[in-house]
This record gives sequence, structure tokens and C-alpha cells, in this order.
Amino acid sequence: MKAVRLAAYDTKPELVEVPDPKIESPLDVIVRVGGAGVCRTDLHIIEGQWEAKSGVALPYTIGHENAGWVQEVGSAVTGLRVGDPVILHPLVTCGLCRACRSGDDVHCDTSRFPGIDADGGYAEYLRTNARAVVGLDPTLAPADVAALADAGLTAYHAVAKAARHLRPGDTAVLIGAGGLGHIGIQVFAALSAARMIVVDRSSDALALAADLGAHHTVLADGDEAAAVRDLTAGNGAEAVIDFVGEGGALEAGVAMLRRAGSYYVVGYGGALTVPTIDIISAEINFVGNLVGSYTDLVELMVLAAQDRVRLHTAKYPMHEFATALDDLAAGRVRGRAVLVP
Amino acid sequence: MKAVRLAAYDTKPELVEVPDPKIESPLDVIVRVGGAGVCRTDLHIIEGQWEAKSGVALPYTIGHENAGWVQEVGSAVTGLRVGDPVILHPLVTCGLCRACRSGDDVHCDTSRFPGIDADGGYAEYLRTNARAVVGLDPTLAPADVAALADAGLTAYHAVAKAARHLRPGDTAVLIGAGGLGHIGIQVFAALSAARMIVVDRSSDALALAADLGAHHTVLADGDEAAAVRDLTAGNGAEAVIDFVGEGGALEAGVAMLRRAGSYYVVGYGGALTVPTIDIISAEINFVGNLVGSYTDLVELMVLAAQDRVRLHTAKYPMHEFATALDDLAAGRVRGRAVLVP
Amino acid sequence: MKAVRLAAYDTKPELVEVPDPKIESPLDVIVRVGGAGVCRTDLHIIEGQWEAKSGVALPYTIGHENAGWVQEVGSAVTGLRVGDPVILHPLVTCGLCRACRSGDDVHCDTSRFPGIDADGGYAEYLRTNARAVVGLDPTLAPADVAALADAGLTAYHAVAKAARHLRPGDTAVLIGAGGLGHIGIQVFAALSAARMIVVDRSSDALALAADLGAHHTVLADGDEAAAVRDLTAGNGAEAVIDFVGEGGALEAGVAMLRRAGSYYVVGYGGALTVPTIDIISAEINFVGNLVGSYTDLVELMVLAAQDRVRLHTAKYPMHEFATALDDLAAGRVRGRAVLVP
Amino acid sequence: MKAVRLAAYDTKPELVEVPDPKIESPLDVIVRVGGAGVCRTDLHIIEGQWEAKSGVALPYTIGHENAGWVQEVGSAVTGLRVGDPVILHPLVTCGLCRACRSGDDVHCDTSRFPGIDADGGYAEYLRTNARAVVGLDPTLAPADVAALADAGLTAYHAVAKAARHLRPGDTAVLIGAGGLGHIGIQVFAALSAARMIVVDRSSDALALAADLGAHHTVLADGDEAAAVRDLTAGNGAEAVIDFVGEGGALEAGVAMLRRAGSYYVVGYGGALTVPTIDIISAEINFVGNLVGSYTDLVELMVLAAQDRVRLHTAKYPMHEFATALDDLAAGRVRGRAVLVP
Repeated sequence: MKAVRLAAYDTKPELVEVPDPKIESPLDVIVRVGGAGVCRTDLHIIEGQWEAKSGVALPYTIGHENAGWVQEVGSAVTGLRVGDPVILHPLVTCGLCRACRSGDDVHCDTSRFPGIDADGGYAEYLRTNARAVVGLDPTLAPADVAALADAGLTAYHAVAKAARHLRPGDTAVLIGAGGLGHIGIQVFAALSAARMIVVDRSSDALALAADLGAHHTVLADGDEAAAVRDLTAGNGAEAVIDFVGEGGALEAGVAMLRRAGSYYVVGYGGALTVPTIDIISAEINFVGNLVGSYTDLVELMVLAAQDRVRLHTAKYPMHEFATALDDLAAGRVRGRAVLVP
Repeated sequence: MKAVRLAAYDTKPELVEVPDPKIESPLDVIVRVGGAGVCRTDLHIIEGQWEAKSGVALPYTIGHENAGWVQEVGSAVTGLRVGDPVILHPLVTCGLCRACRSGDDVHCDTSRFPGIDADGGYAEYLRTNARAVVGLDPTLAPADVAALADAGLTAYHAVAKAARHLRPGDTAVLIGAGGLGHIGIQVFAALSAARMIVVDRSSDALALAADLGAHHTVLADGDEAAAVRDLTAGNGAEAVIDFVGEGGALEAGVAMLRRAGSYYVVGYGGALTVPTIDIISAEINFVGNLVGSYTDLVELMVLAAQDRVRLHTAKYPMHEFATALDDLAAGRVRGRAVLVP
Repeated sequence: MKAVRLAAYDTKPELVEVPDPKIESPLDVIVRVGGAGVCRTDLHIIEGQWEAKSGVALPYTIGHENAGWVQEVGSAVTGLRVGDPVILHPLVTCGLCRACRSGDDVHCDTSRFPGIDADGGYAEYLRTNARAVVGLDPTLAPADVAALADAGLTAYHAVAKAARHLRPGDTAVLIGAGGLGHIGIQVFAALSAARMIVVDRSSDALALAADLGAHHTVLADGDEAAAVRDLTAGNGAEAVIDFVGEGGALEAGVAMLRRAGSYYVVGYGGALTVPTIDIISAEINFVGNLVGSYTDLVELMVLAAQDRVRLHTAKYPMHEFATALDDLAAGRVRGRAVLVP
Repeated sequence: MKAVRLAAYDTKPELVEVPDPKIESPLDVIVRVGGAGVCRTDLHIIEGQWEAKSGVALPYTIGHENAGWVQEVGSAVTGLRVGDPVILHPLVTCGLCRACRSGDDVHCDTSRFPGIDADGGYAEYLRTNARAVVGLDPTLAPADVAALADAGLTAYHAVAKAARHLRPGDTAVLIGAGGLGHIGIQVFAALSAARMIVVDRSSDALALAADLGAHHTVLADGDEAAAVRDLTAGNGAEAVIDFVGEGGALEAGVAMLRRAGSYYVVGYGGALTVPTIDIISAEINFVGNLVGSYTDLVELMVLAAQDRVRLHTAKYPMHEFATALDDLAAGRVRGRAVLVP
């Protein structure tokens, strides 16, 4: 088959012919790729930033946001038929460890991550296992939803976690209306009756946020914490969901919290620095968020099938992978780029 | 009545004659003080550290850990009879704001804090209101439990919050086996079937911890995080409850956390500094803790009446208040000092 | 003032002149009535069905769904100003008992219920206390929302409780699209992203249900359980919310439940009869629901102010109270009748 | 190997020679049986009561409470070594359906139940799969804990569910101190600081209950509900856990519930019959309970290894299986009978 492989860090990946993946284990599933999200992480992988962390042996095939159709299943796989349209949870998990057994499969003791530490989806076929395969509603085309498999899932997981604690009359601030954030906004509108304030540095992003359901938008111009306090009678927000996690976002975000409020860390890059006296005197919480579970992805696909979460995509045929990567690096992609084999 | 009053910061309080407190509002309750905890915070108040924060007008009566007997009740008070033995929740709350109505009275919009920002319990009588009064089991003497009203309540609140998430086979680390910690250890033993590791710098404190129910003790000698990892098959603990919150406790404590674990901040002084990448990649949480609710105090008194939480106290008659404060400052008090009018 | 009083059971109430209510306790609030819901319970009270249960002394003023404006407040009341538009939680609670302190005020040890066991709102003025008063958004007229104070609150409480357990892709069945049900449908649409199936005996009611957001409607013609199973791939629904509670509703409703599902009992009249083997082999739950808390009413008013919950009302001036009661008894009221003093 | 097989309903099982079980699927595990609980359900199976429900083809091997040592593992099994001491979750589950993925594996769409609908543990070897295998602490002998695999697990599941809602000062009533109940009592003592009242018809059982940690015991002599009300200041209990579920247990049990309390149905046989007006006016709940999850069994084994849950067992060599069954039928077994191959 054809696949886009990285042969060495800091070189351009190449479209090459490689053997088709084979079923190696009874729970394995081979998926014919219908779309693979082109993600900023792919650029970082090419630059070598993930070399130590992933430990993957080169050459390998990148692409970690994948959807397509079932092509072949292992001997222990049940419930999947060849040709079923599917989206893939990014992790290949064991189903036997403590985390998997409690529905918290993202913390599986022995997971693999195709596209990061194993061959991914910039290819005609991809090997994953049955525990990663989410069936798609017939109305959803794999290439349209592929980019929800990682970024969308992460946004869903954090917003759904926050929404479980929010009631009508409460306020949530979503910081960042970009890649993750604009999905988070749609998820929030679907899951919660609480008020949503969106904060971003870009007025274009804020206009999109308002279209997608934000009740208030606040420009991140340095006074955003004060603006949020004004909108909440001086109390601050019950929840802050931070899709940025660096720059001044954290400091401003913490200043937006109401007493007993919770700060959901999703974006990363900076450091959280808070005096413990502030944590205890306002009794605030900081909540980590990492990707999302299989059931989170099932739920997100329900919202997608209901057209409550939409993703704008720019599709590229596989052989134009380099253009896609270049467009992404140059900021020329509106929404998400998707590679279609 | 007689009361120990602070006339100016950085001077010694004095035992003086003052008018008895009077019922001023229909929900007020006058309590005849049976015991008032002598707390390190009292030393800090005298030194002026709380001047700006409390804004209290001098002179005033200190003492914020109080128990005694009902002396007089306002016209709207129900359910209390003169002579009832009681312990007092440290806050005087309104019962009408959103926080009070949801059982989260520690975040009352308009609370007062006798002994901090109003006259406290180093006196024969104290005014509070009906929402602060917890009836005592007849087997409990007010002077024996007074010091649980604030420090004990804080420990109970944090441990009970953590215990709700812990299952048999899980591990919790309690950092600090001192004033709050040694109560927290007893509460943990009563509320949870999870494993308890106690970390402290003092081997004496660790010996006490083992007596009180710790399953493992670890000396905080710089390698405590590694020791905890060794005790947890390299995984770390599901919960860390930090009664210290300064020095190296935070850094070591965060390094003890298992993936998806939670860090309960109780002690304070230092700053929490964690890269957001570490928060999200391990999906860990930081949970603030502030005093405890009225119902927390009710529950703690149930454990005290069952003799599952004991406090060693050194009692001083009220006129020896200066000795009590000196003994506390000099580290000569074993357990908690209590002033008995 | 003028008030509609019941002098004897099974006689017509009369509009008479009575003394204005007075502040009797420091937390009392006098409200100028802006609207009082005319409820089927009022008919039952007049017929004497509540005589033994309420034990109220005749004559007294009926009307238990009330909204209006603050007229006068007791000495201990804070946060309310004369003229504030308000809706009243149906219960007058103490704020001191265990239930009140945990936010579960509907189970207050010593509550009163104006319009049931004390003078109610078919009058110019009504006495309640500060713990019952919910401030209204300026966009809401008291007469428009009064009828949400009891029936609406009950529907909100049950639906919100169920919604906390439902995820996208789950299914809930709401049985009964009448008085409570049609509010419940709107609340469900606001709070949950799960699928909603509405069951009713009336095709008119089902048409309204579809307008209000039901995803599927099923006629209760004896085969409704089979129809729900067909809509859920044979599995049944994760939640059944039963606003009827009598006739065949219960038997059909239980047959609609999925394994591990929950049945929310709201309507009443019949008896729940289920073999224990069925309860344990499917591990199903039955959940009681009673009115709702103060915070439930606050949340419902947020939805009303957002126009997410609307009530069709037929307003009658107070002196036409008899017409209102007759119209209600004869089934001539569309939506809810409201008496306006 | 040797196995005790049932060839026809209402005939005695026979010890016969059969082929050893073989690995048939990649996740299969063959266990060398160390102990198989002899359970009243086995008598019912022999009598044919389960014929329609299980649909099993005769002859087959009974025995559904099994523990032993890993003998052989399938190609996809990880984390198990030959010789590991293990106890078996009674269900063989798929790990792929919605229930399995959320940690609720007892509701697996496609589970098998060895000893009920497939060959069980009255044999030298047993085939199960990796998802059913719980590793044992080295201090636990398989024959000593085998009988916890089903009855013990059921008791643990129900008690742990109730314990999560109980606080110090609350009261739980456990009805029935027999097979399930006496394990439930030990689990309750380990997991909850609430007060425990045990109700039984037998004073011997109550004496045992007191030894195992019950705070109060009440003879089920027809006045047990009144006795519980007396012990709870007339309020009733926050939780009733009913291990009996027939006879007068249900009626008496429901009468013991406090407002907003929950009734946990574990035992079965009778029918639950409650007027809906009683369910809503007291806002009570009924909670079904079915076996327990894999993680429940892991947690129970932690308590067993800590000696907090003990089971009295009477061991019989496999060839004395008929004696064991006869002793059980005649009520001659103290604790649980266990067959040891």
C-alpha cells in the first residue's frame, strides 16, 4: 500500500510503497483509512520534538486522527463487519488492566498510540484493535469526522467533565476558541444549560464563538479577568476550561474563578503557579484533562451525527500531504486539514 | 464577664472585665464557654499578621475554637435548650445565600468568624448564631473537643472528601502528622478501607501515626517520593493529602501521585508550581480545602463520641492564658492547649 | 385585604375581607401576590381530600403556587428589598435542621406549606419567610411564572435528577405530556443531550410534546412498551420519568427500562408492584421525587428567563376565582389558570 | 480429568472422567480448580429450576464459585503466569460492549456464566477468560475464598454501593445475617463509619452479627420496623440493605426507611409492592443489585487479604460431592461448603 513515512527527523516525510498491515493478534482490526487529520503534532513529530517521548523506530507512518472502514478483523473480534464505517479512538488499549476495566481506558497500563509510537493513518490501511473502534452513524463520512478523533475528543472530555457540575445560572469560561476550543464551545452548548463566556485573543475567533453558541465573548487584552468578574457580579465563574494553558492564560484564568470553582487544564505549555493560601482560602480546584475515553468518543459521535458538533475541514488527497503540512505550518488551513487516501 | 482581649498588635493580651454579650438578632445564641482552643493562629493574630485580612477593630477577644453550653437563645431559634452542651462551627452564617442553601456554608456570602473578625471564646460567654451550634453527645465534655472546632474540622473535611473517592486497594499518602495531620489520620482510619501512608519529618510523629492507624510511615528525608513509589509498585498514590503545604512538601507530594490521582491541599505557606504538561499528561487534580461545613462538624463529633477521634489536650484555667500562649510558642504543648474559663 | 377563603369542605370558597398578614417572626416576608396558580389540588382541598393530611383549621386561604413582589420583611431578613419581583418556593423551611443544612430543604423537619396547611396566595398578600423567596429576573412577570412554583418545580426536580445520569446516545422516556409533563419536556430539552421519547394517551398532547422538543412520541395504546423497545434496539431506555404513576403507566413504564436503568416516580395514585427477581436480575432502580429544593426553583427560573421553559397561562382576575375553578374542573383551561389579584 | 456432571434434571450428579478443557479463544484461561463453592443454587440447578433460564445442554459440570491456579493461557492473554493463585469473577465477559467498557461488566451483552450455562468448577480444571481472573494475595488459599466469588461478591457490591452515600451518624439496616448477610456485615464494618443495625429471625444469627461488628441487633419478630424506628429517634434509617427479599422482609424493611432513604434489594423471591404516593411523599428509592463487577471482586479480595472479611468453610474432597450437597440440603453446613479437587 501507499503510506506517508518519516524516515528521519527534520526531513520531509515521503509517500512510499510499504507492505499492507496484517492481523497480528486476535483482537486486531485493519481499517481502510477514509481520512486522517493533519495536526500540529505531526509537524512537531517531524521536527523531532517527540523523539525521546515516543521512542518510535524510524521510518514510520504518522497520522493519529483516523477514520475509515473495517477491512479485516482478528479471530477474537466480535460486533464488527467488514465495510462498517468507523472512527478510531487514538489509543490501542488492553481491556484487562485496572484502568481499562473501570472505563478509564486512556490510562491503560500498556496502550499504544498509532501515529505517535506505531504506524499511523497517513496510509491506505492502518492496524488498530477492536477496543479502539467506534462505529459511525451512516450519515457521517469518515473524512468529515476523522479530525475529531483526538483534538475533538480532548475537548469533549474536558467539557463533559465540567458540565456534570454546572447548573442553570452557573457560568463557565472557555479560554481559547481555536482548534480545540471551537469544538469545546459546541459541546458545551449541547451538554450544559449554564452560561458560557468565551475568551480569546482574536476577535475573529470570538465572532465564530458567538455563532457557535457563546453567550458572551471577551477579548483577551489583559483585562479579561476583570471583564469576567464584571459579567458575574464580581463573583467569578464556577468553571474555567482552559484550552490554551500558556502565555497569560493561566494567570488570567485563575483570577476568573469563583470561590469553590474549578479550573480545567486542557491546553499546556506554561506552568501553573498558585500560592497554596489562594488555593485553600478560596477552596478552588485544578483538574487535569487528557484525551478522552472510548465512551467519550462514542458520545461525541452522537453529537456529530445530530449535527450539534461540526468541524470545518479542508481535504487533501494523500499525495498532496506535503501541501497539507505546509498549509498547516503557514496558517493557511481554515478548520482542520484532512488527508484522504 | 472576664475575657482575654487584645488591645494592640504586638502587645500581650489582657484578662479584663467586659460586658456580657447580648442577643442582638433573632437567631443569636449566647454560649457559656467550656473550652477554647489555643491555636497557632492566635499567636499570628497577636503579632498582627491578620490585621489587614480580618480588619477587626481592637480591642477584641480572641479564641476561634469554642465549645460550651447554651446560655441564651434569640427569638427565632428552635431546637436548642439552655444548658445543652455544644461545639461551635467557627463561622456564623446566614442560611439564605446560595452557598448556605446548598450545604456549603463555609462559603457563605456574609459570614463572620468569632475570634478572628469578631469577639471570640477566650471569655466566659460568646455570641454566635443558631446556624453554628452543634449539639454534643452527653459523653463529650466541651473542653475535650473544643480544639476540634477548627483544626479538627479542617482535617475532617479534607480527609472525608478524599475518602469518598478511595476504594480498598487504593493508597492515600497523608503528609504531616502534626496538629491537623494526627486528627486526619484518625479520621482516615475511620472513613476509609484504603491503605494509608503517613509522611513526616519527625520520627516521633511517625510513631504516633503508626499508633493511630497508619499502615506505613515514611520519613520525609528528601527521598520520600521514591519511598512512596516503592510502596505502590512504582505507580504512586491515588490521593495525597497535604497538611503541610510548604517547604519541600509540595514538590515531593506531587511526585507521589499516581496517574489520575488527586492532591488535596490543606496546609499552606508555599506555592504550587506544576508545568501544565505534567497536569495533563498524568491527568492529575489539585483540590483546595477550607475548614469544613456544619455537617462535617456534626460527623466529626459522631466519630469523637465513638472515641474514634481523640485529641490530647493540655488544659489551662483562663487566667493562665499567657502561660498557655507561651507554652504553645515554645513548643511545650503536647497535643492541643485549651483554655477553660 | 381581599382573600378567597374556604369556610367548610365541599362548599364554594368565598371572596371575603380579612386582615392583612403581619410579620410574626424575624425571617418572615410579606409578599404582594402577583399571580396564584389554580391547581387541581385546590379542587381536591375544597372537596375535603386533604382534610386529614393537612389538619388545617377552616376558614383559610387556598393557593399554593405564588409569585408577586416583596411588600415587607422581618428584622432578620437580608438581601430582599420592597418591590422586588419574586416567586415563592412552596415550603416555608427552618434553615436549621439537617435537611435544610444539606440543601435538601424539601425534607425540612418543621416546614409549613402556605395554601395547604396555612394561608395561601388567593389573596392580595401572603406571608412566607425569607428562605422561600426566589428573586425573579426583571423580564419575568410574576403572574406568568406563578404556576411553575409547584408543578413546574416538581417536574424540574425529577428531570434534573435524571439528566445528571444521562449521556448523549442514552434514551429517556417521559410518560405523560400534561401539566407536569409538558414542563418536564422543556426542562429535559434544556438540560440533556440524550434522546427523549414522550408517551401519552392523547395525540394532541403528543403533538405538543413534539413541538416542545421530544425526539419521538409514542401513543399509550397498550403497546407503548413494545414501541419503546423498538426505538431502542430492543434494549429499553436508560431512564423512565413517570409523570402519571397510575393506570397502566407503571406496568408499561417498568417494561420500557433497560438493564441498570432507573425509573423516576413523579406522578402518583397507583401502586408499584415488581417481583424482586426482576429488580435484581436487571439491576433496575426506582427513584422517588417530591417537589424540589429552593435551588431547583432558582435554576428553573433561570430557564424561564431564558425562555427555555414557557407556560401557557389563562389569567383570571381574583373576583372570578369561581370561574377559574369551574373552568379547571370542566377541562376548559388550556395550560394553567392563574388568579391575578 | 474428573468432573461432577449433571446428566439429567432431578437425578444425582456423577463424578465422571471427561476430557480436559482446551484453550478455544485467544483470551481463554484454563484454571486448575483449588476450591469450588457448594451453593444452594447448585441444588436448584439439579432440581431443574434453572433449566429454562440457563438453556444449558446436559450433561454439564456445575460449580459457579471458583478459585484455583492458572494452568494455561490463550495467545492474547497478558499479565497472568502459570501457577498464579486466582479467584474467578463468575461471568466471562467480552470487554468490548458498552457495559464492559464502562466498568459495569456484569451487564455485558454477551457474557457466559460457567457452572450455570457452561461447564463449571466441580472439576479439576475449568475454562474461563482473562477478563474473569483476579489475582490472589499470596496469603489467601483458593479453597478458603472460592465461596466469595459469587455470594460474597453480591454482598460486597450492594454494601459498597450503599456505603458511598452514608456518613457518620447515619444508620443502615441490614436485613438477614445468613450466607450473604454475614459477609455484608463484615464489608459494612470495613467500608462505612455509619451505624449498623442487623435484623434477622434467628437469635444465633444475631449473635454472630454482633461479633462481626453490628452496633445493634433486632429480632425479626414482627415488630422489627418499630424497633428500628425506636433506635433512630422515630426517623428510620438512611439505608436498608435487604439480603432476604421475601416473606415479610420487604414490608418491614420499607417501614424502616427514613425520608429520602434508599432500599437496596439484594435477596429475592417476593414482590415489592409500594403505593406510589408513599414513594413520592417520602421521596424514597429502591436500588437493584446484581452480583458485582470485576473491580468489586478485586476490592473484596483486598479486604479478605487484610482479614477484614472471613468466611467459615467446610471443605470436602471432590469425590465426597454428594455428601456436601446432602449436608447443604439438610442444613448441616456451618458457613459455606467448598469442594476441593
